[in-house]
Amino acid sequence: MARYEGVSASVIRRLPRYYRFLGELKAKGMERISSREFADIIGLTASQIRQDLNCFGGFGQQGYGYNIESLCAEIGRILNVDALRPTILVGAGNLGLALVNHMRFEARGFRLIGIFDSDPEKIGHTIRDWQIQDVARLEAFCQEHHPLAAILCIPKQVAVECADLLVQNGVKGFWNFTHQDLSIIYKDGIAVENVHLGDSLMTLSFNIAEVMDAE
Amino acid sequence: MARYEGVSASVIRRLPRYYRFLGELKAKGMERISSREFADIIGLTASQIRQDLNCFGGFGQQGYGYNIESLCAEIGRILNVDALRPTILVGAGNLGLALVNHMRFEARGFRLIGIFDSDPEKIGHTIRDWQIQDVARLEAFCQEHHPLAAILCIPKQVAVECADLLVQNGVKGFWNFTHQDLSIIYKDGIAVENVHLGDSLMTLSFNIAEVMDAE
Repeated sequence: MARYEGVSASVIRRLPRYYRFLGELKAKGMERISSREFADIIGLTASQIRQDLNCFGGFGQQGYGYNIESLCAEIGRILNVDALRPTILVGAGNLGLALVNHMRFEARGFRLIGIFDSDPEKIGHTIRDWQIQDVARLEAFCQEHHPLAAILCIPKQVAVECADLLVQNGVKGFWNFTHQDLSIIYKDGIAVENVHLGDSLMTLSFNIAEVMDAE
Repeated sequence: MARYEGVSASVIRRLPRYYRFLGELKAKGMERISSREFADIIGLTASQIRQDLNCFGGFGQQGYGYNIESLCAEIGRILNVDALRPTILVGAGNLGLALVNHMRFEARGFRLIGIFDSDPEKIGHTIRDWQIQDVARLEAFCQEHHPLAAILCIPKQVAVECADLLVQNGVKGFWNFTHQDLSIIYKDGIAVENVHLGDSLMTLSFNIAEVMDAE
């Protein structure tokens, strides 16, 4: 049985935002915050924050606000950010390299253990601590190193084939940047986070039209 | 007055998803789809789809389903994907280059007209059709070419300064990949789409923990 069966996906999706802002407040040396002040900072209502956190048991004391450090630690625990799951990246194009260079995987539950690509010009090159390996070695690598998560930055046409191979070899979750919506294929037992940057860009398009119309 | 005042942000956020799937169905040659079939394909409920579309007037005929081509065109119109707004990219690192190389801006309401960076080793290089320009020229460029949107792939420390300069020079929307949450700074009149890839990765972390616990 899952730990938080029944908590809605939109509540889950706000947790990283809480965690990020709490981390910033902690870094500034703040110790306590009321749900109202916190709401102002993160752009939600105080009652939404209280409701969200109540899904996990609630962490504040009425009238005393939240202890920033302990709430941050608690949300981090719920998000499993200390899990250091062995993780591979497939597809070392610009996007893949941007992620390898800038994403703090280890602070978010993942530990990168291998990078793969099919391009002979890339194979063998070293990016930070990792040498790019031939994707033909992917299955052998999985059997030896047992990655639990994979980041897919590959073309849509090869996404399902690659994901299937990884699932057969024990991968439990995908950070999916391909245009293939894997969450439709794997309904149970596999976690998929599709990143559709194009959807984000279209949302911006809508919102720019709105602000320009409102002028 | 904005065109769709009062439509909730979460409805707006689902529109690009509808648009994307409708485009795929159209490309497959399908002409009609019931809200139930459509719901199965995109992983929502039929009543949610009907409710969402009703916010914009509703497009189906009870019992006949949706005409895919006209619904797709209508949602595209709502999203303003044909707007071809002049757009600049600031920050030509791996992430910026990945966006330039792979994102179909013109199909989503934007037309890239300039790329900027502060790194002397990058300035002058050509990426697809664009020569990377010195960020010191940004203001002069804005005054000449009037970009309406900007994609920010720059470090957090310089994000606000850069965004302020662009707002003063007429930019109305940001696709913001920096770790500075600009939507908190610009409350009115400026559209901001923050892309927090780290939040997405933490959501995946949570969901992997859930599927592994459920085994």
